[in-house]
Amino acid sequence: MSILVLGTTALDTVTTPSGRRREMLGGSAVHFAMSATRFTRVNLVAVVGRDFPRRHIDFLKKKGVGVASLSIEDGVTFRWEGEYHGDLNTALTRSTRLGVLATFRPRITEEQRRIENIFLANVDPDIQRHLLERMRAPRLVGLDSMNYWIDHKRRVLVRLLKKVDIFVANDAEARSLSGETHLIKAARALRKMGAPMVVIKKGEHGVFVLFKDRIICLPAYPVETIVDPTGAGDTFAGGFMGYLATAKKLHAAAIKKAISYGTIMASFNVEGFGVERTARLTKKDITGRLKRFRDMVSL
Amino acid sequence: MSILVLGTTALDTVTTPSGRRREMLGGSAVHFAMSATRFTRVNLVAVVGRDFPRRHIDFLKKKGVGVASLSIEDGVTFRWEGEYHGDLNTALTRSTRLGVLATFRPRITEEQRRIENIFLANVDPDIQRHLLERMRAPRLVGLDSMNYWIDHKRRVLVRLLKKVDIFVANDAEARSLSGETHLIKAARALRKMGAPMVVIKKGEHGVFVLFKDRIICLPAYPVETIVDPTGAGDTFAGGFMGYLATAKKLHAAAIKKAISYGTIMASFNVEGFGVERTARLTKKDITGRLKRFRDMVSL
Repeated sequence: MSILVLGTTALDTVTTPSGRRREMLGGSAVHFAMSATRFTRVNLVAVVGRDFPRRHIDFLKKKGVGVASLSIEDGVTFRWEGEYHGDLNTALTRSTRLGVLATFRPRITEEQRRIENIFLANVDPDIQRHLLERMRAPRLVGLDSMNYWIDHKRRVLVRLLKKVDIFVANDAEARSLSGETHLIKAARALRKMGAPMVVIKKGEHGVFVLFKDRIICLPAYPVETIVDPTGAGDTFAGGFMGYLATAKKLHAAAIKKAISYGTIMASFNVEGFGVERTARLTKKDITGRLKRFRDMVSL
Repeated sequence: MSILVLGTTALDTVTTPSGRRREMLGGSAVHFAMSATRFTRVNLVAVVGRDFPRRHIDFLKKKGVGVASLSIEDGVTFRWEGEYHGDLNTALTRSTRLGVLATFRPRITEEQRRIENIFLANVDPDIQRHLLERMRAPRLVGLDSMNYWIDHKRRVLVRLLKKVDIFVANDAEARSLSGETHLIKAARALRKMGAPMVVIKKGEHGVFVLFKDRIICLPAYPVETIVDPTGAGDTFAGGFMGYLATAKKLHAAAIKKAISYGTIMASFNVEGFGVERTARLTKKDITGRLKRFRDMVSL
């Protein structure tokens, strides 16, 4: 039932039309964890430097995120700085400073090696492979990546695709890795490459899922004011995998419900900077929006 | 129950990655009618020149489209020539020849003036206004337009908005007419301008509807091979309005069903050149795809 997420823990500096925030708690594993922790117990596998504020670790603990495998190493924490303009669909990266991420090798406890649900959030595919090889009883493995790794470590990524159950990508990544422009064809190609389920995130246009030749397609939850889209994809994956970790079987109804939870969690994420909004969420917020989403799309 | 559609009847020459067709039967009113005729009796109000092939009129009649108010006038038929490249999302207009459309004034029969459901498909807003003023008992009036009229006849269009029940626009048109970039805000602004229901067509990303502060959002039906997207928006409107013309009340369930029918009809339209595919549709094709669409989105 519990889930282990490998990815980045970062200090994000973000500028959007709504303002600017410096060195917020961020990173793929953090956004995923903040979302998945609403559904199941989450174990974070990541690295930070000595400069990482203690309050962020306390905050994650308070939110129920297991930090036993969050390594604190000599050096500085991974930092990302980006800007969004216009329709906020694309981030413009201002700077990236890898710090301790450059030499990161995940270390997990013996107990964690038995966790059955695993999400390999965006990080170097060699690190993803390394962690996956150490897991003793994978039941459900999800994989995310980014264009940088598709361009620079394509081979490792393609090998990893054969070992996971779910590949999560945005539309540009799906096109780039499959070599197909048309999204349905891209999804089919990615399935042929190994992942039985392909989840393509289309941002404000929702999600497209291919699973055993079955297509599930749902729109995004319409959000009036987007404050900061950073981490929306990881937040989606957190809700999606977090719910699936609790589901007995991967039938269509469970997958649709998982997509809905992912969609709802992502819609909250974009309403605040960093994890501001997801941190404050109540159970009522989630069930209320889920009901409205269901009303919006169900025929 | 029956519906009257005003718009263009054209001879379209279209080039797409699937090939080229010369002088096919096309136009906003024709695409609308070919779709709406599956749901209710449709009366076409349009104009063609003496060069218009008789076989197209016979074809429309055979499909149950009323052509009593399809004027045949001295001069040539409206012709459009366009190309699609890459993802086929945007048409590149090669040439437009107005012909008899330049001096078109719709003439309808006394009996047609009593038709309660009216769709003003894309044509000069002055002609749309002229026709609407002649109608005696409008129950449900839909309005479509295009960027050219938004730029050149904005005032007439804005006045028309106050007299219709449903405004149908694609995302670019909605943004341009409302002055709002964000689609939800654009829809709200258009509602304030007068149309109680705003339907925004997002092409391959589906449809967004705002109705009495209620949002309905549905994805497009995923189509593997897009042959020719010309007329997809009008085909959507035909299914949408055609179904609503038969609905007793405009409650959320009816509107969702109308969107589904519009979506399904548009998905067929893009699978062939012009009206090739919609002309061949069986009832079973429609109900089968509707069921798959429902399975795909319902939670």
